[in-house]
Amino acid sequence: MEPVLKSPIPAGTLTAIERSKQLAAWTAVDQHIKPEHRVIGIGSGSTVPYVVERIVLQGYEANKDRVFIPTGFQSKELIISSGLGLGDVDQYPTIDVTIDGADEVDLELNCIKGGGACHLREKVLAEAALTFILVADYRKNVDYLCTNFKPGVPIEVVPFAYAKVLRNLHESLRSPNATLRMAVAKAGPVVTDNGNFVIDAPFSREDMTDPYAIMARIKMLTGVVEVGLFCHMAKAAYFGNQDGSVTAKWVGGKVEQIPACQ
Amino acid sequence: MEPVLKSPIPAGTLTAIERSKQLAAWTAVDQHIKPEHRVIGIGSGSTVPYVVERIVLQGYEANKDRVFIPTGFQSKELIISSGLGLGDVDQYPTIDVTIDGADEVDLELNCIKGGGACHLREKVLAEAALTFILVADYRKNVDYLCTNFKPGVPIEVVPFAYAKVLRNLHESLRSPNATLRMAVAKAGPVVTDNGNFVIDAPFSREDMTDPYAIMARIKMLTGVVEVGLFCHMAKAAYFGNQDGSVTAKWVGGKVEQIPACQ
Repeated sequence: MEPVLKSPIPAGTLTAIERSKQLAAWTAVDQHIKPEHRVIGIGSGSTVPYVVERIVLQGYEANKDRVFIPTGFQSKELIISSGLGLGDVDQYPTIDVTIDGADEVDLELNCIKGGGACHLREKVLAEAALTFILVADYRKNVDYLCTNFKPGVPIEVVPFAYAKVLRNLHESLRSPNATLRMAVAKAGPVVTDNGNFVIDAPFSREDMTDPYAIMARIKMLTGVVEVGLFCHMAKAAYFGNQDGSVTAKWVGGKVEQIPACQ
Repeated sequence: MEPVLKSPIPAGTLTAIERSKQLAAWTAVDQHIKPEHRVIGIGSGSTVPYVVERIVLQGYEANKDRVFIPTGFQSKELIISSGLGLGDVDQYPTIDVTIDGADEVDLELNCIKGGGACHLREKVLAEAALTFILVADYRKNVDYLCTNFKPGVPIEVVPFAYAKVLRNLHESLRSPNATLRMAVAKAGPVVTDNGNFVIDAPFSREDMTDPYAIMARIKMLTGVVEVGLFCHMAKAAYFGNQDGSVTAKWVGGKVEQIPACQ
């Protein structure tokens, strides 16, 4: 692979964590967003601005006939402010590549998403994508989910049913510390872009050996809109490391270390 | 059984259909709402007013310490206007008996609900009930679902994802005629009490031999909030007939004809 990761941002301007996010995002764009791709999904989270930054660096000619589909408010604003073409998934039901952040990614590329409470729209764009790619910093690279990401699995619920779903999680699904997510910049609970509430449910490593099974059980609960567990969806995940290298994990278990570049 | 069905409404005042709904509702109340029951769920639909009518006839003493939990706007108004005590399922998570209407009920007491777009709240109250009872007129008594109820299975969906869910239903779930339900008294689609849209999806008899399987497949679709198929939930269903008799279907397959009373 060519050493393409020459940041226009001077060394030292970004913190180590931010630089690792940028490395992951840039590598993913360079590996997966090719000239022939016309419809591109843009996810949510703190790594995604670097995805858009790298796409813009592909130049006007590369981007002028492309359409970019956002997962929510943040990515929509990013697309518009970067001068890229905005599209809607209803008009473009098949997306060439979606690149999205994640809160944690396990050995089989199952991941937790929804720290930002956008996971319903993110899952729609992940399903619509022919290729779904994850990007994150090294802290999100784990063997089992719920290792570092303590809030646990985000679950979008209809407001009317939140107390009943909390009881189901506490009593039937072995998540005694599941809690309703409270807002910081407003009184009361967080309200999603779809007008719903979010429950954060931590699970044990034992449950996280089969995330799909727990995801299906949660989704089947009456009142649950969507579960922030994305199973068997990603083709690859890129994690930026503190030493400037990037770890690539592929579906099937292959792991590749991409060395630091100059 | 005692002939308890003496209506205070003079014969001939109600149409045959209305009378059959009344008979079903009254029989269900007489059979299942006992003096010791304190928390009672009140469903939605055209048969439910007769349920409340019969409960009121049990008298002030029987009702003064009871709490009634509604599934939506209609039943809430009914409870209040009848002078009964209104409660909330969050405060009373266990309900002694819920009586609810249905659009169709099959041989195994699986049913379609949601013609009135309340099926999420109805399902929460059905699950919370120790005893869940269905009431309807004879037209809703079928061997297989989707026999007479032509709109099919109502599916509550997040507005953002409706086009994607419609595609899933058309392409993967063999419901080529699934459509978004349009409003009559407002422009655009019906919006549920939870702010969502409703898709009506007809299914073949072949699919309706195992309603639970199709329900689970629909519920697992990203963007689906709740499916108006209630499987393995009801203990009994009562159908009023045109001749004044009532057909009772019990879980396990027992069918009983309760003769017309004076």
